[in-house]
Amino acid sequence: MTREACRANGFFGSTSGAAPSYLQANVIVLPSKYADDFRALCARNPVPCPLIAESRTTGDFASLRSLLSGVADDAVAGSLDLRTDCPSYNVYQDGRLVLHETPDISAQWTDDHVAFLIGCSYSFESALVRAGLPPRHMQMGRNVPMYRTNIPLNPAGAFSGGTYVVSMRPYRAADIDKIRTITRRYLPTHGECIAWGWDAVARLGIADISSPQWGDAPLTVDGRPLRDVFRDEDNVPVFWGCGVTPQEAVMRANLSGTIMSHAPGHMLVLDCLEDNVLP
Amino acid sequence: MTREACRANGFFGSTSGAAPSYLQANVIVLPSKYADDFRALCARNPVPCPLIAESRTTGDFASLRSLLSGVADDAVAGSLDLRTDCPSYNVYQDGRLVLHETPDISAQWTDDHVAFLIGCSYSFESALVRAGLPPRHMQMGRNVPMYRTNIPLNPAGAFSGGTYVVSMRPYRAADIDKIRTITRRYLPTHGECIAWGWDAVARLGIADISSPQWGDAPLTVDGRPLRDVFRDEDNVPVFWGCGVTPQEAVMRANLSGTIMSHAPGHMLVLDCLEDNVLP
Repeated sequence: MTREACRANGFFGSTSGAAPSYLQANVIVLPSKYADDFRALCARNPVPCPLIAESRTTGDFASLRSLLSGVADDAVAGSLDLRTDCPSYNVYQDGRLVLHETPDISAQWTDDHVAFLIGCSYSFESALVRAGLPPRHMQMGRNVPMYRTNIPLNPAGAFSGGTYVVSMRPYRAADIDKIRTITRRYLPTHGECIAWGWDAVARLGIADISSPQWGDAPLTVDGRPLRDVFRDEDNVPVFWGCGVTPQEAVMRANLSGTIMSHAPGHMLVLDCLEDNVLP
Repeated sequence: MTREACRANGFFGSTSGAAPSYLQANVIVLPSKYADDFRALCARNPVPCPLIAESRTTGDFASLRSLLSGVADDAVAGSLDLRTDCPSYNVYQDGRLVLHETPDISAQWTDDHVAFLIGCSYSFESALVRAGLPPRHMQMGRNVPMYRTNIPLNPAGAFSGGTYVVSMRPYRAADIDKIRTITRRYLPTHGECIAWGWDAVARLGIADISSPQWGDAPLTVDGRPLRDVFRDEDNVPVFWGCGVTPQEAVMRANLSGTIMSHAPGHMLVLDCLEDNVLP
Protein backbone atom coordinates (compact mmCIF):
# COMPACT_ATOMS: atom_id res chain seq x y z
CA MET A 1 0.00 0.00 0.00
CA THR A 2 2.76 2.44 0.95
CA ARG A 3 4.65 1.37 -2.18
CA GLU A 4 1.63 1.95 -4.40
CA ALA A 5 0.97 5.32 -2.79
CA CYS A 6 4.59 6.29 -3.55
CA ARG A 7 4.23 5.13 -7.16
CA ALA A 8 1.11 7.26 -7.59
CA ASN A 9 3.03 10.17 -6.05
CA GLY A 10 0.60 10.29 -3.15
CA PHE A 11 3.19 9.69 -0.42
CA PHE A 12 6.33 11.80 -0.03
CA GLY A 13 7.20 11.55 3.66
CA SER A 14 9.63 9.61 5.80
CA THR A 15 8.70 5.92 5.96
CA SER A 16 9.61 5.71 9.66
CA GLY A 17 6.44 4.36 11.28
CA ALA A 18 4.73 3.73 7.91
CA ALA A 19 3.49 0.15 7.37
CA PRO A 20 4.55 -1.01 10.85
CA SER A 21 6.10 -4.50 11.14
CA TYR A 22 6.82 -4.64 7.39
CA LEU A 23 10.48 -4.76 6.42
CA GLN A 24 11.90 -1.58 4.90
CA ALA A 25 15.03 -1.27 2.77
CA ASN A 26 17.71 1.21 1.80
CA VAL A 27 18.02 1.32 -2.01
CA ILE A 28 21.24 1.86 -3.98
CA VAL A 29 21.26 1.76 -7.79
CA LEU A 30 24.62 1.33 -9.55
CA PRO A 31 25.93 0.87 -13.11
CA SER A 32 26.47 -2.87 -13.65
CA LYS A 33 30.27 -2.54 -13.85
CA TYR A 34 30.30 -1.91 -10.08
CA ALA A 35 27.81 -4.65 -9.16
CA ASP A 36 30.28 -7.45 -8.36
CA ASP A 37 32.43 -5.22 -6.17
CA PHE A 38 29.35 -3.91 -4.35
CA ARG A 39 28.12 -7.47 -3.73
CA ALA A 40 31.54 -8.33 -2.31
CA LEU A 41 31.49 -5.18 -0.14
CA CYS A 42 28.19 -6.30 1.38
CA ALA A 43 29.27 -9.94 1.75
CA ARG A 44 32.41 -8.82 3.56
CA ASN A 45 30.59 -6.28 5.79
CA PRO A 46 27.21 -7.84 6.58
CA VAL A 47 26.63 -5.93 9.83
CA PRO A 48 26.60 -2.38 8.41
CA CYS A 49 25.78 -3.50 4.81
CA PRO A 50 23.16 -6.30 5.03
CA LEU A 51 22.24 -6.99 1.38
CA ILE A 52 18.71 -8.44 1.40
CA ALA A 53 17.80 -8.39 -2.32
CA GLU A 54 18.89 -7.10 -5.72
CA SER A 55 17.50 -6.63 -9.24
CA ARG A 56 16.79 -10.09 -10.64
CA THR A 57 18.85 -9.22 -13.72
CA THR A 58 20.77 -6.15 -14.86
CA GLY A 59 18.30 -3.43 -15.82
CA ASP A 60 15.38 -5.07 -14.03
CA PHE A 61 13.34 -2.60 -11.95
CA ALA A 62 10.26 -4.81 -11.52
CA SER A 63 11.54 -8.03 -9.97
CA LEU A 64 14.02 -8.97 -7.30
CA ARG A 65 16.33 -11.81 -6.36
CA SER A 66 15.86 -12.46 -2.64
CA LEU A 67 19.01 -12.93 -0.58
CA LEU A 68 17.02 -13.60 2.60
CA SER A 69 17.16 -17.29 3.44
CA GLY A 70 13.69 -18.82 3.34
CA VAL A 71 12.09 -15.80 1.63
CA ALA A 72 11.06 -16.34 -2.02
CA ASP A 73 11.82 -13.68 -4.63
CA ASP A 74 8.14 -12.72 -4.97
CA ALA A 75 7.63 -12.59 -1.21
CA VAL A 76 10.09 -9.68 -0.87
CA ALA A 77 7.96 -7.39 -3.02
CA GLY A 78 5.22 -8.55 -5.39
CA SER A 79 4.13 -5.63 -7.54
CA LEU A 80 7.21 -3.45 -7.78
CA ASP A 81 8.72 -0.53 -9.65
CA LEU A 82 12.10 0.35 -8.16
CA ARG A 83 12.09 3.66 -10.09
CA THR A 84 9.06 5.07 -8.30
CA ASP A 85 8.30 3.04 -5.18
CA CYS A 86 10.43 4.98 -2.69
CA PRO A 87 8.84 8.27 -1.52
CA SER A 88 11.86 10.10 -2.93
CA TYR A 89 15.34 9.60 -4.38
CA ASN A 90 18.69 11.32 -4.76
CA VAL A 91 20.55 11.14 -8.09
CA TYR A 92 24.34 11.49 -8.44
CA GLN A 93 26.28 12.02 -11.67
CA ASP A 94 30.02 11.20 -11.56
CA GLY A 95 29.99 11.63 -7.78
CA ARG A 96 28.03 14.93 -7.74
CA LEU A 97 24.44 15.23 -6.37
CA VAL A 98 22.38 16.42 -9.36
CA LEU A 99 18.81 15.73 -8.18
CA HIS A 100 17.69 16.06 -4.55
CA GLU A 101 14.58 14.24 -3.28
CA THR A 102 12.98 13.54 -6.64
CA PRO A 103 9.92 11.20 -6.53
CA ASP A 104 10.73 9.35 -9.78
CA ILE A 105 13.97 8.10 -11.36
CA SER A 106 12.41 6.57 -14.50
CA ALA A 107 14.25 9.09 -16.71
CA GLN A 108 17.62 8.22 -15.13
CA TRP A 109 17.20 4.42 -14.95
CA THR A 110 18.90 2.56 -17.83
CA ASP A 111 19.03 -1.11 -18.77
CA ASP A 112 22.58 -1.14 -17.36
CA HIS A 113 21.46 -0.31 -13.80
CA VAL A 114 21.31 -2.77 -10.90
CA ALA A 115 19.36 -2.00 -7.70
CA PHE A 116 20.53 -3.25 -4.31
CA LEU A 117 18.30 -3.40 -1.22
CA ILE A 118 19.97 -3.08 2.19
CA GLY A 119 18.25 -3.95 5.48
CA CYS A 120 17.37 -1.15 7.88
CA SER A 121 17.21 -0.83 11.66
CA TYR A 122 13.47 -0.16 11.88
CA SER A 123 12.99 -3.93 12.42
CA PHE A 124 14.94 -4.23 15.64
CA GLU A 125 13.46 -0.93 16.85
CA SER A 126 10.00 -2.51 16.74
CA ALA A 127 11.35 -5.38 18.82
CA LEU A 128 12.77 -2.95 21.37
CA VAL A 129 9.41 -1.16 21.58
CA ARG A 130 7.63 -4.50 22.12
CA ALA A 131 10.08 -5.31 24.92
CA GLY A 132 9.23 -2.05 26.70
CA LEU A 133 12.58 -0.49 25.76
CA PRO A 134 11.61 2.06 23.07
CA PRO A 135 14.52 4.01 21.54
CA ARG A 136 14.79 7.52 22.98
CA HIS A 137 14.50 9.29 19.58
CA MET A 138 11.18 7.53 18.89
CA GLN A 139 9.77 8.59 22.28
CA MET A 140 10.78 12.17 21.56
CA GLY A 141 9.61 12.26 17.94
CA ARG A 142 13.10 12.82 16.56
CA ASN A 143 15.36 11.10 14.03
CA VAL A 144 17.98 8.65 15.23
CA PRO A 145 21.47 10.24 15.40
CA MET A 146 24.07 8.73 13.05
CA TYR A 147 27.85 9.16 13.17
CA ARG A 148 30.89 8.45 11.01
CA THR A 149 33.38 6.24 12.85
CA ASN A 150 37.00 5.15 12.41
CA ILE A 151 36.10 1.43 12.10
CA PRO A 152 37.33 0.38 8.66
CA LEU A 153 35.11 -1.57 6.28
CA ASN A 154 36.67 -4.64 4.72
CA PRO A 155 37.51 -3.24 1.26
CA ALA A 156 36.17 -4.80 -1.95
CA GLY A 157 37.48 -3.72 -5.33
CA ALA A 158 36.27 -0.21 -6.21
CA PHE A 159 35.02 0.20 -2.64
CA SER A 160 38.02 0.76 -0.38
CA GLY A 161 38.72 3.24 2.38
CA GLY A 162 35.16 3.28 3.77
CA THR A 163 34.33 3.21 7.48
CA TYR A 164 31.29 2.19 9.54
CA VAL A 165 28.46 4.65 9.97
CA VAL A 166 26.64 3.88 13.23
CA SER A 167 23.27 4.81 14.71
CA MET A 168 23.07 5.54 18.45
CA ARG A 169 20.35 5.03 21.06
CA PRO A 170 20.99 5.92 24.71
CA TYR A 171 19.94 3.34 27.32
CA ARG A 172 20.36 2.68 31.03
CA ALA A 173 23.55 0.71 31.73
CA ALA A 174 21.46 -1.94 33.51
CA ASP A 175 19.43 -2.58 30.32
CA ILE A 176 22.31 -3.11 27.90
CA ASP A 177 22.54 -6.90 28.29
CA LYS A 178 18.82 -7.13 27.53
CA ILE A 179 19.23 -4.77 24.52
CA ARG A 180 22.06 -6.91 23.16
CA THR A 181 19.97 -10.07 23.50
CA ILE A 182 16.86 -8.58 21.87
CA THR A 183 18.70 -7.21 18.85
CA ARG A 184 21.06 -10.19 18.38
CA ARG A 185 18.64 -12.25 16.31
CA TYR A 186 18.06 -9.44 13.76
CA LEU A 187 21.11 -10.62 11.77
CA PRO A 188 19.90 -9.37 8.35
CA THR A 189 19.01 -5.92 9.72
CA HIS A 190 22.21 -4.90 11.58
CA GLY A 191 21.56 -7.17 14.57
CA GLU A 192 23.29 -6.84 17.90
CA CYS A 193 24.81 -3.49 18.83
CA ILE A 194 28.48 -3.21 17.83
CA ALA A 195 29.64 -1.07 20.77
CA TRP A 196 28.27 0.42 23.99
CA GLY A 197 29.43 2.56 26.89
CA TRP A 198 30.72 6.11 27.24
CA ASP A 199 34.25 4.86 26.50
CA ALA A 200 33.07 3.70 23.09
CA VAL A 201 32.48 7.30 21.93
CA ALA A 202 36.20 8.15 21.73
CA ARG A 203 37.11 4.61 20.70
CA LEU A 204 34.88 4.90 17.61
CA GLY A 205 36.45 8.27 16.79
CA ILE A 206 33.28 10.27 17.49
CA ALA A 207 34.38 13.80 18.43
CA ASP A 208 31.08 15.01 19.94
CA ILE A 209 28.13 12.76 20.79
CA SER A 210 25.84 15.80 20.46
CA SER A 211 26.91 16.54 16.87
CA PRO A 212 25.86 13.58 14.73
CA GLN A 213 26.65 13.69 10.99
CA TRP A 214 23.06 12.64 10.15
CA GLY A 215 19.75 12.70 12.05
CA ASP A 216 18.95 14.76 15.14
CA ALA A 217 21.20 15.43 18.12
CA PRO A 218 20.46 12.99 20.98
CA LEU A 219 18.83 14.36 24.11
CA THR A 220 18.25 13.38 27.72
CA VAL A 221 14.61 12.72 28.66
CA ASP A 222 14.40 16.29 29.99
CA GLY A 223 15.71 17.72 26.72
CA ARG A 224 19.38 18.45 27.45
CA PRO A 225 22.14 17.61 24.94
CA LEU A 226 23.54 14.16 25.67
CA ARG A 227 27.08 15.57 26.02
CA ASP A 228 25.89 17.39 29.18
CA VAL A 229 25.42 14.06 30.98
CA PHE A 230 28.82 12.59 30.06
CA ARG A 231 29.36 9.26 31.92
CA ASP A 232 25.75 9.23 33.23
CA GLU A 233 24.73 5.57 33.69
CA ASP A 234 21.11 6.34 32.74
CA ASN A 235 22.16 7.64 29.31
CA VAL A 236 24.79 5.22 28.06
CA PRO A 237 25.38 5.44 24.27
CA VAL A 238 24.67 2.16 22.45
CA PHE A 239 25.80 1.91 18.81
CA TRP A 240 24.56 -0.21 15.90
CA GLY A 241 25.79 -0.63 12.33
CA CYS A 242 23.80 1.71 10.05
CA GLY A 243 22.49 1.39 6.48
CA VAL A 244 24.03 4.76 5.63
CA THR A 245 27.38 2.91 5.60
CA PRO A 246 27.09 1.48 2.06
CA GLN A 247 25.78 4.83 0.74
CA GLU A 248 28.84 6.54 2.22
CA ALA A 249 31.12 3.84 0.77
CA VAL A 250 29.55 4.39 -2.67
CA MET A 251 29.95 8.17 -2.40
CA ARG A 252 33.61 7.86 -1.32
CA ALA A 253 34.46 5.53 -4.19
CA ASN A 254 34.32 8.29 -6.84
CA LEU A 255 32.38 6.14 -9.28
CA SER A 256 31.67 7.31 -12.81
CA GLY A 257 28.17 7.28 -14.27
CA THR A 258 24.73 7.71 -12.74
CA ILE A 259 24.17 6.46 -9.17
CA MET A 260 20.78 6.65 -7.46
CA SER A 261 19.58 6.02 -3.93
CA HIS A 262 16.47 6.49 -1.81
CA ALA A 263 16.53 9.86 -0.04
CA PRO A 264 17.55 9.38 3.63
CA GLY A 265 14.56 8.17 5.69
CA HIS A 266 12.52 7.59 2.51
CA MET A 267 12.88 3.83 2.36
CA LEU A 268 11.37 1.15 0.15
CA VAL A 269 8.60 -0.67 2.07
CA LEU A 270 8.61 -4.43 1.36
CA ASP A 271 5.93 -7.14 1.50
CA CYS A 272 7.62 -9.36 4.08
CA LEU A 273 7.12 -9.02 7.79
CA GLU A 274 10.17 -8.10 9.83
CA ASP A 275 9.96 -11.23 11.93
CA ASN A 276 9.70 -13.52 8.89
CA VAL A 277 13.21 -12.70 7.72
CA LEU A 278 15.02 -13.83 10.85
CA PRO A 279 17.26 -16.90 10.54
CA MET B 1 45.26 -39.35 2.74
CA THR B 2 46.72 -36.66 5.02
CA ARG B 3 43.64 -37.01 7.24
CA GLU B 4 44.04 -40.78 7.43
CA ALA B 5 47.76 -40.46 8.18
CA CYS B 6 46.88 -38.10 11.06
CA ARG B 7 44.27 -40.52 12.38
CA ALA B 8 46.83 -43.35 12.34
CA ASN B 9 49.25 -41.03 14.13
CA GLY B 10 51.65 -41.20 11.21
CA PHE B 11 51.64 -37.46 10.48
CA PHE B 12 52.45 -34.83 13.10
CA GLY B 13 53.79 -31.88 11.15
CA SER B 14 52.50 -28.57 9.87
CA THR B 15 49.98 -29.05 7.07
CA SER B 16 51.38 -26.08 5.11
CA GLY B 17 52.20 -27.55 1.71
CA ALA B 18 50.57 -30.93 2.54
CA ALA B 19 47.87 -32.08 0.08
CA PRO B 20 48.37 -29.09 -2.23
CA SER B 21 45.22 -27.53 -3.75
CA TYR B 22 42.95 -29.21 -1.16
CA LEU B 23 41.13 -26.89 1.22
CA GLN B 24 42.39 -26.82 4.81
CA ALA B 25 40.50 -25.64 7.85
CA ASN B 26 41.06 -24.22 11.31
CA VAL B 27 39.12 -26.30 13.86
CA ILE B 28 37.45 -24.97 17.03
CA VAL B 29 35.44 -27.27 19.32
CA LEU B 30 33.07 -25.67 21.84
CA PRO B 31 30.47 -26.76 24.41
CA SER B 32 27.03 -26.50 22.75
CA LYS B 33 25.88 -23.62 24.97
CA TYR B 34 28.27 -21.34 23.05
CA ALA B 35 27.42 -22.62 19.57
CA ASP B 36 24.74 -20.05 18.63
CA ASP B 37 26.88 -17.12 19.72
CA PHE B 38 29.90 -18.51 17.86
CA ARG B 39 27.82 -18.95 14.67
CA ALA B 40 26.68 -15.33 15.03
CA LEU B 41 30.27 -14.18 15.59
CA CYS B 42 31.28 -15.83 12.31
CA ALA B 43 28.21 -14.58 10.41
CA ARG B 44 28.96 -11.03 11.58
CA ASN B 45 32.71 -11.24 10.85
CA PRO B 46 33.02 -13.37 7.71
CA VAL B 47 36.36 -11.95 6.58
CA PRO B 48 38.49 -12.99 9.58
CA CYS B 49 36.05 -15.78 10.69
CA PRO B 50 34.85 -17.60 7.54
CA LEU B 51 32.78 -20.51 8.88
CA ILE B 52 32.84 -23.24 6.22
CA ALA B 53 31.32 -26.22 8.06
CA GLU B 54 30.28 -27.48 11.47
CA SER B 55 29.36 -30.75 13.23
CA ARG B 56 26.14 -32.01 11.62
CA THR B 57 24.58 -32.30 15.09
CA THR B 58 25.79 -31.60 18.61
CA GLY B 59 28.32 -34.25 19.61
CA ASP B 60 28.90 -35.41 16.03
CA PHE B 61 32.60 -35.86 15.23
CA ALA B 62 32.13 -37.95 12.09
CA SER B 63 29.93 -35.86 9.81
CA LEU B 64 29.65 -32.22 8.83
CA ARG B 65 27.07 -29.71 7.72
CA SER B 66 28.60 -27.77 4.81
CA LEU B 67 28.20 -24.00 4.85
CA LEU B 68 29.93 -23.62 1.49
CA SER B 69 27.39 -22.84 -1.20
CA GLY B 70 27.31 -25.59 -3.81
CA VAL B 71 29.39 -28.03 -1.74
CA ALA B 72 27.48 -31.04 -0.34
CA ASP B 73 28.02 -32.14 3.25
CA ASP B 74 29.86 -35.30 2.19
CA ALA B 75 32.04 -33.43 -0.29
CA VAL B 76 33.69 -31.39 2.49
CA ALA B 77 35.14 -34.50 4.13
CA GLY B 78 33.97 -38.07 3.47
CA SER B 79 35.59 -40.36 6.02
CA LEU B 80 36.14 -38.15 9.06
CA ASP B 81 36.99 -38.23 12.74
CA LEU B 82 37.28 -34.70 14.07
CA ARG B 83 38.93 -36.02 17.26
CA THR B 84 42.00 -37.40 15.48
CA ASP B 85 42.23 -36.00 11.96
CA CYS B 86 44.28 -32.88 12.69
CA PRO B 87 48.02 -33.58 13.16
CA SER B 88 47.72 -32.13 16.66
CA TYR B 89 45.40 -30.24 19.00
CA ASN B 90 45.44 -27.89 21.98
CA VAL B 91 42.98 -28.43 24.84
CA TYR B 92 41.78 -25.68 27.19
CA GLN B 93 39.90 -26.12 30.45
CA ASP B 94 38.03 -23.05 31.81
CA GLY B 95 40.29 -20.79 29.72
CA ARG B 96 43.59 -22.46 30.70
CA LEU B 97 45.75 -24.49 28.25
CA VAL B 98 45.89 -27.98 29.75
CA LEU B 99 47.17 -30.06 26.80
CA HIS B 100 49.62 -28.75 24.20
CA GLU B 101 49.90 -30.37 20.75
CA THR B 102 48.22 -33.66 21.58
CA PRO B 103 47.47 -35.92 18.56
CA ASP B 104 44.08 -37.16 19.82
CA ILE B 105 41.18 -35.50 21.67
CA SER B 106 38.93 -38.58 21.90
CA ALA B 107 39.18 -38.58 25.70
CA GLN B 108 38.12 -34.92 25.91
CA TRP B 109 35.35 -34.95 23.28
CA THR B 110 31.85 -35.27 24.78
CA ASP B 111 28.42 -35.59 23.19
CA ASP B 112 27.88 -31.92 24.10
CA HIS B 113 30.72 -30.67 21.85
CA VAL B 114 30.27 -28.92 18.50
CA ALA B 115 33.15 -28.55 16.02
CA PHE B 116 33.47 -25.50 13.77
CA LEU B 117 35.67 -25.38 10.66
CA ILE B 118 37.07 -22.00 9.62
CA GLY B 119 38.61 -21.32 6.18
CA CYS B 120 42.34 -20.71 5.97
CA SER B 121 44.53 -18.54 3.78
CA TYR B 122 46.46 -21.40 2.16
CA SER B 123 43.91 -21.28 -0.71
CA PHE B 124 44.63 -17.77 -1.89
CA GLU B 125 48.35 -18.36 -1.35
CA SER B 126 48.22 -21.11 -4.00
CA ALA B 127 46.54 -18.64 -6.34
CA LEU B 128 49.28 -16.07 -5.71
CA VAL B 129 51.95 -18.70 -6.45
CA ARG B 130 50.18 -19.63 -9.70
CA ALA B 131 50.13 -15.94 -10.67
CA GLY B 132 53.91 -15.69 -10.21
CA LEU B 133 53.51 -13.67 -6.99
CA PRO B 134 54.51 -16.18 -4.29
CA PRO B 135 54.29 -14.90 -0.69
CA ARG B 136 57.71 -13.99 0.71
CA HIS B 137 57.48 -16.35 3.70
CA MET B 138 56.89 -19.34 1.38
CA GLN B 139 59.90 -18.42 -0.75
CA MET B 140 62.04 -18.23 2.39
CA GLY B 141 60.66 -21.37 4.06
CA ARG B 142 59.24 -19.44 7.01
CA ASN B 143 55.82 -19.12 8.67
CA VAL B 144 53.60 -16.19 7.75
CA PRO B 145 53.77 -13.40 10.38
CA MET B 146 50.49 -12.69 12.22
CA TYR B 147 49.59 -9.64 14.31
CA ARG B 148 46.92 -8.51 16.74
CA THR B 149 45.24 -5.31 15.52
CA ASN B 150 42.92 -2.66 16.96
CA ILE B 151 40.12 -3.39 14.43
CA PRO B 152 37.12 -4.45 16.53
CA LEU B 153 35.15 -7.57 15.68
CA ASN B 154 31.39 -7.15 15.56
CA PRO B 155 30.47 -8.65 18.95
CA ALA B 156 28.08 -11.60 19.29
CA GLY B 157 26.79 -12.67 22.68
CA ALA B 158 29.53 -14.32 24.75
CA PHE B 159 32.07 -13.14 22.18
CA SER B 160 32.64 -9.42 22.63
CA GLY B 161 35.76 -7.31 22.81
CA GLY B 162 37.71 -9.28 20.19
CA THR B 163 39.80 -7.68 17.45
CA TYR B 164 41.07 -8.80 14.04
CA VAL B 165 44.21 -10.88 13.84
CA VAL B 166 45.86 -10.32 10.44
CA SER B 167 48.49 -12.13 8.42
CA MET B 168 51.03 -10.08 6.46
CA ARG B 169 52.87 -10.63 3.18
CA PRO B 170 55.19 -7.94 1.81
CA TYR B 171 54.83 -7.08 -1.89
CA ARG B 172 56.04 -4.46 -4.37
CA ALA B 173 53.73 -1.42 -4.39
CA ALA B 174 53.25 -1.88 -8.13
CA ASP B 175 51.82 -5.39 -7.60
CA ILE B 176 49.19 -4.54 -4.97
CA ASP B 177 46.32 -3.94 -7.41
CA LYS B 178 47.02 -7.34 -8.96
CA ILE B 179 47.24 -8.96 -5.48
CA ARG B 180 43.87 -7.43 -4.52
CA THR B 181 42.25 -8.75 -7.70
CA ILE B 182 43.67 -12.27 -7.37
CA THR B 183 42.61 -12.70 -3.74
CA ARG B 184 39.19 -10.98 -4.08
CA ARG B 185 37.37 -14.08 -5.27
CA TYR B 186 38.48 -16.21 -2.31
CA LEU B 187 35.51 -14.94 -0.26
CA PRO B 188 35.20 -18.06 1.97
CA THR B 189 38.92 -18.07 2.79
CA HIS B 190 39.58 -14.46 3.89
CA GLY B 191 39.50 -13.04 0.35
CA GLU B 192 40.86 -9.64 -0.63
CA CYS B 193 43.47 -8.04 1.62
CA ILE B 194 41.93 -5.75 4.25
CA ALA B 195 44.72 -3.14 4.34
CA TRP B 196 47.99 -2.35 2.58
CA GLY B 197 50.77 0.23 2.66
CA TRP B 198 53.31 1.31 5.27
CA ASP B 199 50.74 3.73 6.74
CA ALA B 200 48.49 0.78 7.54
CA VAL B 201 50.96 -0.56 10.14
CA ALA B 202 50.28 2.21 12.65
CA ARG B 203 46.63 2.48 11.60
CA LEU B 204 46.07 -1.18 12.55
CA GLY B 205 47.78 -0.57 15.89
CA ILE B 206 50.81 -2.76 15.07
CA ALA B 207 53.72 -1.47 17.20
CA ASP B 208 56.55 -3.23 15.35
CA ILE B 209 56.20 -4.95 11.97
CA SER B 210 59.22 -7.11 12.86
CA SER B 211 57.64 -8.48 16.06
CA PRO B 212 54.57 -10.48 15.03
CA GLN B 213 52.51 -12.13 17.79
CA TRP B 214 52.47 -15.44 15.87
CA GLY B 215 54.60 -16.92 13.05
CA ASP B 216 58.08 -15.78 12.00
CA ALA B 217 59.33 -12.20 11.72
CA PRO B 218 59.09 -10.94 8.12
CA LEU B 219 62.31 -10.41 6.19
CA THR B 220 63.56 -8.65 3.09
CA VAL B 221 64.75 -10.94 0.28
CA ASP B 222 68.32 -10.44 1.53
CA GLY B 223 67.35 -11.46 5.05
CA ARG B 224 67.06 -8.14 6.91
CA PRO B 225 64.18 -7.43 9.35
CA LEU B 226 61.35 -5.71 7.50
CA ARG B 227 61.44 -2.75 9.93
CA ASP B 228 64.88 -1.85 8.49
CA VAL B 229 63.31 -1.00 5.12
CA PHE B 230 60.50 1.22 6.51
CA ARG B 231 58.64 2.91 3.64
CA ASP B 232 60.49 0.86 0.98
CA GLU B 233 58.17 0.49 -2.04
CA ASP B 234 59.53 -3.00 -2.82
CA ASN B 235 58.48 -4.30 0.62
CA VAL B 236 55.04 -2.85 1.24
CA PRO B 237 53.10 -4.68 3.99
CA VAL B 238 49.83 -6.21 2.76
CA PHE B 239 47.40 -7.51 5.42
CA TRP B 240 44.69 -10.17 5.29
CA GLY B 241 42.12 -11.34 7.82
CA CYS B 242 43.51 -14.39 9.64
CA GLY B 243 41.90 -17.58 10.97
CA VAL B 244 43.62 -17.05 14.32
CA THR B 245 40.99 -14.32 14.91
CA PRO B 246 38.16 -16.64 16.07
CA GLN B 247 40.61 -18.63 18.26
CA GLU B 248 41.65 -15.38 19.92
CA ALA B 249 38.02 -14.34 20.34
CA VAL B 250 37.25 -17.69 21.99
CA MET B 251 40.26 -17.39 24.32
CA ARG B 252 39.31 -13.82 25.30
CA ALA B 253 35.72 -14.79 26.08
CA ASN B 254 36.65 -16.65 29.30
CA LEU B 255 34.36 -19.56 28.52
CA SER B 256 33.76 -22.31 31.02
CA GLY B 257 34.18 -25.99 30.14
CA THR B 258 36.48 -27.79 27.72
CA ILE B 259 37.47 -26.02 24.50
CA MET B 260 39.65 -27.67 21.85
CA SER B 261 41.35 -26.43 18.70
CA HIS B 262 43.85 -27.64 16.12
CA ALA B 263 47.38 -26.67 17.10
CA PRO B 264 48.51 -23.60 15.06
CA GLY B 265 49.62 -24.66 11.58
CA HIS B 266 48.26 -28.19 12.12
CA MET B 267 45.05 -27.83 10.11
CA LEU B 268 42.33 -30.25 9.08
CA VAL B 269 42.82 -31.20 5.42
CA LEU B 270 39.47 -31.46 3.57
CA ASP B 271 38.31 -33.37 0.48
CA CYS B 272 37.25 -30.38 -1.60
CA LEU B 273 39.58 -28.54 -3.93
CA GLU B 274 40.29 -24.91 -3.08
CA ASP B 275 38.92 -23.67 -6.38
CA ASN B 276 35.67 -25.61 -6.04
CA VAL B 277 34.52 -23.60 -3.05
CA LEU B 278 34.57 -20.21 -4.73
CA PRO B 279 31.21 -18.49 -5.26
